[in-house]
Amino acid sequence: MSKKLTSRDEDYSKWYNELVVKADLAENSAVRGCMVIKPYGFAIWEKIQAELDRMFKETGHQNAYFPLFIPKSLFEAEEKNAEGFAKECAIVTHYRLQNDPENPGKLRVDPEAKLEEELIVRPTSEAIIWNTYKGWIQSYRDLPILVNQWANVVRWEMRTRLFLRTAEFLWQEGHTAHATKVEAVKEAELMNNVYATFVENFMAIPVIKGVKTDSERFAGAVETYCIEALMQDGKALQAGTSHFLGQNFAKAFDVKFATQEGKQEYVWATSWGVSTRLMGALIMTHSDDHGLVLPPNLAPNQVVIVPIYKNDEQLEEISTLVNVIMGELRSKGITVKFDNRTTFRPGAKFAQHELQGVPLRIAIGPKDLENGTVELARRDTLTKEVIAIDNLTETVEGLMTEIQNTLYKKALDFRDSHITEVDDFETFKTVLKTKGGFISAHWDGTEETELKIKELTKATIRCIPSDMETQSGDCVYSGKPSNGRVLFAKAY
Amino acid sequence: MSKKLTSRDEDYSKWYNELVVKADLAENSAVRGCMVIKPYGFAIWEKIQAELDRMFKETGHQNAYFPLFIPKSLFEAEEKNAEGFAKECAIVTHYRLQNDPENPGKLRVDPEAKLEEELIVRPTSEAIIWNTYKGWIQSYRDLPILVNQWANVVRWEMRTRLFLRTAEFLWQEGHTAHATKVEAVKEAELMNNVYATFVENFMAIPVIKGVKTDSERFAGAVETYCIEALMQDGKALQAGTSHFLGQNFAKAFDVKFATQEGKQEYVWATSWGVSTRLMGALIMTHSDDHGLVLPPNLAPNQVVIVPIYKNDEQLEEISTLVNVIMGELRSKGITVKFDNRTTFRPGAKFAQHELQGVPLRIAIGPKDLENGTVELARRDTLTKEVIAIDNLTETVEGLMTEIQNTLYKKALDFRDSHITEVDDFETFKTVLKTKGGFISAHWDGTEETELKIKELTKATIRCIPSDMETQSGDCVYSGKPSNGRVLFAKAY
Repeated sequence: MSKKLTSRDEDYSKWYNELVVKADLAENSAVRGCMVIKPYGFAIWEKIQAELDRMFKETGHQNAYFPLFIPKSLFEAEEKNAEGFAKECAIVTHYRLQNDPENPGKLRVDPEAKLEEELIVRPTSEAIIWNTYKGWIQSYRDLPILVNQWANVVRWEMRTRLFLRTAEFLWQEGHTAHATKVEAVKEAELMNNVYATFVENFMAIPVIKGVKTDSERFAGAVETYCIEALMQDGKALQAGTSHFLGQNFAKAFDVKFATQEGKQEYVWATSWGVSTRLMGALIMTHSDDHGLVLPPNLAPNQVVIVPIYKNDEQLEEISTLVNVIMGELRSKGITVKFDNRTTFRPGAKFAQHELQGVPLRIAIGPKDLENGTVELARRDTLTKEVIAIDNLTETVEGLMTEIQNTLYKKALDFRDSHITEVDDFETFKTVLKTKGGFISAHWDGTEETELKIKELTKATIRCIPSDMETQSGDCVYSGKPSNGRVLFAKAY
Repeated sequence: MSKKLTSRDEDYSKWYNELVVKADLAENSAVRGCMVIKPYGFAIWEKIQAELDRMFKETGHQNAYFPLFIPKSLFEAEEKNAEGFAKECAIVTHYRLQNDPENPGKLRVDPEAKLEEELIVRPTSEAIIWNTYKGWIQSYRDLPILVNQWANVVRWEMRTRLFLRTAEFLWQEGHTAHATKVEAVKEAELMNNVYATFVENFMAIPVIKGVKTDSERFAGAVETYCIEALMQDGKALQAGTSHFLGQNFAKAFDVKFATQEGKQEYVWATSWGVSTRLMGALIMTHSDDHGLVLPPNLAPNQVVIVPIYKNDEQLEEISTLVNVIMGELRSKGITVKFDNRTTFRPGAKFAQHELQGVPLRIAIGPKDLENGTVELARRDTLTKEVIAIDNLTETVEGLMTEIQNTLYKKALDFRDSHITEVDDFETFKTVLKTKGGFISAHWDGTEETELKIKELTKATIRCIPSDMETQSGDCVYSGKPSNGRVLFAKAY
């Protein structure tokens, strides 16, 4: 199999799919729409998890685990205030296989082993969690509950793409319960800010914070906060959402608490989540035609060292030096791998590490041993440099920060140059077609206009930005009055 | 709800169930046989996970993620060499709910949305993983594959108990692929040793290493290595297993590799796992009638500090001191919580921390401020002591080690005093009934005898110990010749 990727210009979508598979991030499985996350891809996801988990705990949250299955009746309770909730889910109806009496060697579902009540594989866990919280909450002393869960969820998507939209995906879902509306709103905003900080500082992906319109809001939410990122092909990607759920779930599952004054009141709720979709955002923000580009914060190996040698003696000499270098780099918290595989030649190793986005490659050959130098190759700029080995550790340390910052800056420049203020619908369509990106335009606030624009252009309102300035204007489609600009884009 | 537990003597099983719920470890859910792992219980599981994950990585393994679902046809392929594999699984047959036309407000499974092929919710992942490995392995250069997965699995158990046997549980499953039999056997043994080291050193639970008999072996395995622990009620608990799978799965899924010499050979395999069952082992090894007892390594809070005060001024003075103490303890890597909740009195806090097994409690009151002392209460020995505050950090540090060791020693003494050498079947039955524990007895090596003993006594052969001495004798049941003693016990 050729390691070379289709270029982004040629076919962006093909480039993406090839990169995911060839860089060993993930692949399709024998199960329709479900992916295998390969060790290298999973190592990146573990870095995402670890940092987010740290941030959740720092803001007072604890992890817990709730059942994979949700009885159909709990779904019905939720359904009352979430009519729009998707019903494409995996449904368990039976609990036993048996040898098929008509086909020796084959198995069949035992028709006798039918469940009394069907179980839904969780597409999200509000229903089972709020049904559980009912038992945990009696009085104000039991509040707040600040719980998060790392879990797999299943949504029966018809058209799937690795990381971006898969039938099963991994995510975290926070579910909190509060005594007051003010506190719950504050929590939903806090977690959206946590996501923004994480995605920007850790993943080097700039985002716009805002809230969703009525039609794009999570069913059952009163307000949906979100962070929106921009991919290289000019399409937006929703990177995380945080919902203020009001008392909707408390009412659906009858969860009340005794206030300090002894009154019975419904509990206020939030939920918030990010998923393995972030891997898609990572790839489509930083990568290039040579493969993955990783910000140092997310790289399983920040540095890889490749020895160039002609004989065992040279390899041994290089190895001795590399051990010293690795010790120093590790003492500074830098992850480094010595790629001393004898089954691959240096060229093949270079190609692999480039494809897999290792931020910095160090090559050491006999000449370097003589001269006291090493060759550094940056993945982000694809530049090489021979430097003296003396201050290697400081140089590498500095480069880690610089690469992280450079990637963020580059993505930010791209994003900022792809926000276009537009005041008439013809320009709206032209910009969308020729340049893409976010279109900042006036909107009359009606769902009718929003849906009409979507129908005509496939662009949706990604968010009403948190920092939207009040500004009167005319709706870009209807011409009706508007009091501020919202962001439209085509989206993943 | 009373916080007091039923005593172990009165009803061991009831004590266990009450402890799990009252100590906030887990509870039953709305889904038959599935549990909710509560934040406190999950925090303990996270400690187990973190340490095991570290050990897996240290021994060269990487994490990955495979689909939750397994198509029925893959099960059939596996079935050929694993006839005995349990078929009690959750089966997904449909992918859509719809509003029930006959019952407004209710949902039903859309009969049109039937899957072409049923999907099994993974009870274990050999089938889907080996079907994937087929694509990963071409030559010896692709081996070994050393992969682990942290996942939820489902087995449709009829009789469930929190942590010990639940329909859904959390576990890790390692799945490795090797070029040679020797290497695979070594891996299976290595991982059983990793489990033993972890359970003994980290969880303070002594275990016996050994292999399973033919009838107790995992279906599809050539050899099953295991670690067996002994619970306080004299029943054994299998704490972990590691399987040498031979070439069985490679053959079932046609996974061959080109050797260095260019020959095509089937790949050798292992799999190994531990689960949330370890939480059950933890509880039943160390806890007492007052509640959970945690070894410091597994305690979410190793130390809790409770202030005793009559007014805000005293609380403030105590808090100032506590901040200093916490800073010092944390600098030594000790996790400490200041329980300054104003909604609970000290007595209630003491009771809660005792029930939840916090290894060390520090109480500080006005008298202590005057005298420069604090009160230490050890959970394991239930002893209290007033000590000078001067060398508190050193004392606490020392106690962490001491408590960990004391718990292990106590469990080891109990275990060792419950291994009884028995040479006739009458004594076998009496010991089992009166004392329980492991019975070390000669066995003729036949499945017939093993099953007969199980039928008559409910005791099974837990393992053929790794350190079994060759010793000729007569089978405790049949009188036929035997060449060593194996360990029988009733088991969870």
